[in-house]
Amino acid sequence: MTLAVLINGSAPQDLSHAIPVNDRGLHYGDGLFETALLADGRIRFLDDHLQRLMTGCRRLGIPAPHREVLLDEIQRVTSSLRSGVLKIIVTRGAGGRGYGIEPTLQPTRIVALYAAPDAVKSEVALRWCETRLGRNARLAGVKHLNRLEQVLAQAEQGAARSDEGLMLDTEGELVGGIASNVFLVRDGALVTPDLRFSGVRGVMRDRVLRAATQAGMIASEEPLWPHDLDAASEVFLTNAIRGVQSAVSLDALQWRAGPVAARLRVALAL
Amino acid sequence: MTLAVLINGSAPQDLSHAIPVNDRGLHYGDGLFETALLADGRIRFLDDHLQRLMTGCRRLGIPAPHREVLLDEIQRVTSSLRSGVLKIIVTRGAGGRGYGIEPTLQPTRIVALYAAPDAVKSEVALRWCETRLGRNARLAGVKHLNRLEQVLAQAEQGAARSDEGLMLDTEGELVGGIASNVFLVRDGALVTPDLRFSGVRGVMRDRVLRAATQAGMIASEEPLWPHDLDAASEVFLTNAIRGVQSAVSLDALQWRAGPVAARLRVALAL
Repeated sequence: MTLAVLINGSAPQDLSHAIPVNDRGLHYGDGLFETALLADGRIRFLDDHLQRLMTGCRRLGIPAPHREVLLDEIQRVTSSLRSGVLKIIVTRGAGGRGYGIEPTLQPTRIVALYAAPDAVKSEVALRWCETRLGRNARLAGVKHLNRLEQVLAQAEQGAARSDEGLMLDTEGELVGGIASNVFLVRDGALVTPDLRFSGVRGVMRDRVLRAATQAGMIASEEPLWPHDLDAASEVFLTNAIRGVQSAVSLDALQWRAGPVAARLRVALAL
Repeated sequence: MTLAVLINGSAPQDLSHAIPVNDRGLHYGDGLFETALLADGRIRFLDDHLQRLMTGCRRLGIPAPHREVLLDEIQRVTSSLRSGVLKIIVTRGAGGRGYGIEPTLQPTRIVALYAAPDAVKSEVALRWCETRLGRNARLAGVKHLNRLEQVLAQAEQGAARSDEGLMLDTEGELVGGIASNVFLVRDGALVTPDLRFSGVRGVMRDRVLRAATQAGMIASEEPLWPHDLDAASEVFLTNAIRGVQSAVSLDALQWRAGPVAARLRVALAL
């Protein structure tokens, strides 16, 4: 449920008639998004989200919105609320037909607050997705609006219930969950896919890497493959909304919710 | 310039406030599009475009719009006009947060007519794009809304003028133009990339393949690489709006506008 929306700073009169018909976000997925948690009246890791949004704008050549403007709009949609999910979308703007970027384009800014998620599980069952992620270093790590692969992967979930699907890229390399990053504990060290070809560099992923290092753990980003899961003593997912979730099963594999995830939750005050 | 628009059959009062803020086309590029030429009061190859749209809906699991409904809406946006560019977008619809598809979703249908293109060149200068196309057989051939790679490739065009950029995939295989398919004449036979990993199966591409076969030429779809251009006696691009365009240059390579493109233009009444 959408609780509040601002589009370029204005509240639309009608949410079902709100976006320009020629917005490039709609036509090409030409833009970026952020999803952050509002809890106890504060946006968790807000600076990290804004920083990633600015980095993404630079990667795609979209003029970044002013930080103060965004902060003001975030404050307005969250002012009377204690909890929810904040979503920010920035597109390259409305105009033209064809891929070429007209110099007069003004980015479209959408700042929306959704209802808080249902209770978040601390332990999750995983499945493998059949849909693969294409590899393209040019877009790897960026939280852009081209998300058909994730949509198709999520839609595979049929009668067999799981909490999250793990995705491989087209070469069979492990990337992460459909909407999360994945970490493995191997010989006491923390590893996560390096995302050099695909995937999103999650805000929670970065926080976990830093917190682990600060706690004296060895933490690294590496190419990982499905067989690396066999050797893992502990597996967990990270996501800005859901925090750190311990994986307990994946087909025949089983893990116990482990001490590393527990320590990181404490360290990050999740 | 947009001349006429229908969204789910209704003309929006305000084109800048027309699309639901939660449309999945905007959030994920979760949809498809078609671009067709209106010339002399008729949509060229309309059946082919509608057929590809239906095929794309099936590939993405989006309920396809009824053909009669689309035909009626196309007739309404084109009724008083003799020429223009018809664009159809079908998204999975408006609703929800997150990748999961709610069963109640109703697809969004946008049928729009834009002004006719400027005079189309029959001979074009090519350049190489640095931006590569990711490989993913799951989406290959489909004219979906995830088009960031094309946007970035088009944006590379700086001061150096060319008419179209050629794109390779991340493994270096030739795919086609940013918004066109590419054909080579080699030892008298016609070849075009097979698009098994990326690219869009153009309506004009299919028409050219059929017309060439009917004219007694050998025409095949194959994996092609940049060096195949060195051996080509003739190179041309195909696009539903621009028809068949002879390539005359690409860096140090030069070709003459050749007889095969000319014959195909006649055969297809372009």
